[in-house]
Amino acid sequence: MEKHSKIIREILSQAKINVENGYGPFLAALYDETGNLISQSSNSVIKDCCSNHHAEMNAIKLAEKKLGTYDLSKYNLSLYVTAEPCMMCLGAILWSGIKKVFYSVSTKDVEEITGFDEGIKPDWIKEFENRGIEVCGEIEVEEGKKLLTDYVKEKREIYKPKREK
Amino acid sequence: MEKHSKIIREILSQAKINVENGYGPFLAALYDETGNLISQSSNSVIKDCCSNHHAEMNAIKLAEKKLGTYDLSKYNLSLYVTAEPCMMCLGAILWSGIKKVFYSVSTKDVEEITGFDEGIKPDWIKEFENRGIEVCGEIEVEEGKKLLTDYVKEKREIYKPKREK
Repeated sequence: MEKHSKIIREILSQAKINVENGYGPFLAALYDETGNLISQSSNSVIKDCCSNHHAEMNAIKLAEKKLGTYDLSKYNLSLYVTAEPCMMCLGAILWSGIKKVFYSVSTKDVEEITGFDEGIKPDWIKEFENRGIEVCGEIEVEEGKKLLTDYVKEKREIYKPKREK
Repeated sequence: MEKHSKIIREILSQAKINVENGYGPFLAALYDETGNLISQSSNSVIKDCCSNHHAEMNAIKLAEKKLGTYDLSKYNLSLYVTAEPCMMCLGAILWSGIKKVFYSVSTKDVEEITGFDEGIKPDWIKEFENRGIEVCGEIEVEEGKKLLTDYVKEKREIYKPKREK
């Protein structure tokens, strides 16, 4: 567990630096079984002007480019991410062949702090486990929440679509 | 309804041509309220070697690039797609600000015909409607199913990750 906490603390630090450079307050990193970093990215929705560009999506794309495959399963990769993935990113993880998911703050915290709508994802941890994907969440939560509360306090852009309802 | 059926038939025809050129058997198109085509794309997972590159994801990215925004809501766009979107694409639609979704074959048909795992998405239509997004499905289903059964019969690549479970 200490290994996972260490990586989560590291990515939370890096995410804070990236926010200062115009990225969103989420960062994802993919590691192989021997602890090699395969890819890392912050959310770049604002920078790239593309609502698809969440941290997890970017990290998956970079890893697949680096390894030359759309199926990461044989590399037994672990995803570390500063927050519980949203509906889009959970779907992307299923398609990618990622084997383990570790995250810091929960969706409930993300939605309460930022006002983002993380989508529809009941019982996703059980469904992931049914598909052979391990999940471990709420690691270093206080640090994770601080990244988001700072982002909001600093009045940075909340990049979500306008809704009539 | 005839207007929607016409567009679905058109995108099914285009999808078939794109399959012959190495794309996956799914196509998505975004139209504005006056019927202008804003963007269109097939699934390019194999071509781009990226598991994120579903038709809907590509069409959203192209539209946001064209219109210069990560929030499409003010354009009141309708998404037409040859099959019910998977979990990833449903999440992406929520983030994009798309207002209406029209599709041909259901997820049940997609999974039965192709063997793809479309993810976890219970009651998504109700959840979309709660967010002000209209959904209309199973339009020109027989033509939609034919696109997928032909893809499988022709022994084209089923691009999904290997699972141990």
